[in-house]
Amino acid sequence: MTTQQLVQQIKTKKSFLCIGLDVDLTKIPTHLLELEDPIFEFNKAIIDATHDLCVSYKPNTAFYEANGLKGWQSLQKTINYLNEKHPEIFTIADAKRGDIGNTSAMYAKAFLEDLNFDSVTVAPYMGKDSVEPFLAFENKHTIMLALTSNEGAFDFQTKNVEGNELYKVVIETSKTWKNSQNLMYVVGATKAEYFTEIRKIIPNSFLLVPGVGAQGGSLQEVCKYGMNDEIGLLINSSRGIIYASNDKDFAERARMEALKMQQEMEIILNKD
Amino acid sequence: MTTQQLVQQIKTKKSFLCIGLDVDLTKIPTHLLELEDPIFEFNKAIIDATHDLCVSYKPNTAFYEANGLKGWQSLQKTINYLNEKHPEIFTIADAKRGDIGNTSAMYAKAFLEDLNFDSVTVAPYMGKDSVEPFLAFENKHTIMLALTSNEGAFDFQTKNVEGNELYKVVIETSKTWKNSQNLMYVVGATKAEYFTEIRKIIPNSFLLVPGVGAQGGSLQEVCKYGMNDEIGLLINSSRGIIYASNDKDFAERARMEALKMQQEMEIILNKD
Repeated sequence: MTTQQLVQQIKTKKSFLCIGLDVDLTKIPTHLLELEDPIFEFNKAIIDATHDLCVSYKPNTAFYEANGLKGWQSLQKTINYLNEKHPEIFTIADAKRGDIGNTSAMYAKAFLEDLNFDSVTVAPYMGKDSVEPFLAFENKHTIMLALTSNEGAFDFQTKNVEGNELYKVVIETSKTWKNSQNLMYVVGATKAEYFTEIRKIIPNSFLLVPGVGAQGGSLQEVCKYGMNDEIGLLINSSRGIIYASNDKDFAERARMEALKMQQEMEIILNKD
Repeated sequence: MTTQQLVQQIKTKKSFLCIGLDVDLTKIPTHLLELEDPIFEFNKAIIDATHDLCVSYKPNTAFYEANGLKGWQSLQKTINYLNEKHPEIFTIADAKRGDIGNTSAMYAKAFLEDLNFDSVTVAPYMGKDSVEPFLAFENKHTIMLALTSNEGAFDFQTKNVEGNELYKVVIETSKTWKNSQNLMYVVGATKAEYFTEIRKIIPNSFLLVPGVGAQGGSLQEVCKYGMNDEIGLLINSSRGIIYASNDKDFAERARMEALKMQQEMEIILNKD
């Protein structure tokens, strides 16, 4: 998918919501556990109930790998379902991978080619040759961790590196990499003022923003400081939507939560 | 496995060799491709031929994920084979994972509990709460990226952070984390002098060292600067051993390469 197609979808749906499919077997409705593939059935129900309200789904690979072979199968079925039924959706493999060049190339093939996700998240610690293999795929996107929304973000990411915070150095450096136009960035919503600084470095890039709602970030604030002319934001919500209920009405209740966010987003989009 | 058991194994085998099982279907002998699970058959043959010469095997998950479901199955069969036939071997899931706390906990469960590896590699960028869930497993080990052996290591890891290089800050900080006694570190062999600096911060920790041989590092130099009283080193070799031949003699030839390294290590161990 091209960035332009993503922007078009946002404008059509009046939403820049990404729903995180972090499926934990201990949290989903128990009636699903009797089915052959509870994870996929859960995802399918959530997708069916919310796909007109969001522009992106983001399964986090950890939740699938925690179920071994069966989990990998559920991931495969989920991405296939999305690609077949909703090809307009921007799909994100939240994998946070990164390794030496030839090994990163294997991850890139796994997620962007074989599973055919539109994008994959990567970690920056190993530098240029650990990320460039992901960037080589045309019309695919690599979403690099910049400033995350967790407490540990302040251990290293905000440390001062030769006069600048590490996350800024990471973003700045990544702009020099080959095919850097295929980069997006993870920026947590916990401190909206950071977005001002980040927009000075990458005014045009898309930012994937976790941490709105459950983790305390404000949608209004993030949009105030982070939105650009082409929207440039994907706001992720996982638990707040998919676990709104753990009863038979889970999909309906997920839709209600997604609708609330979409409506807030529509107001913001109409204002601009 | 306890660290003491690993040290004992090193002393018994007179080897601190780790063999990287980075199995690429385009590089293994073609006669294996006719078998039902070529990756597992390749690993089994390599393990059978080399297990007395090394103390550790390290499958890199990228090479398995690149083959989807079948790849995950090969990984599972490989670790099960190691745990059943060679329980003395220290097994490493080279996964370089790291995510927010509850998500890292899923990865930790996947690799340390379900697949039952002795250890897993992790990336430090997301800080304390992204690593601590791995450290919570008793007699399991978390091998954190500190200074890697690739070119991109110099993009961020060696940058100056408030007077110290980032990789040193990462190591120093990690010592304060809960259960930090379960930490080991990845330190590339490309510049042996770095080991002197690292040993000042963590004199007793085990270091997993890629980059000897193929990537240009010298075993002698690494041992000179990096070895401690309890050895404290695992030297990894992947391609140099497992792809010594891509013909029917591949396992035999892998053994010859492993033997060369073991013999070099025996000389070094006898000297001390």
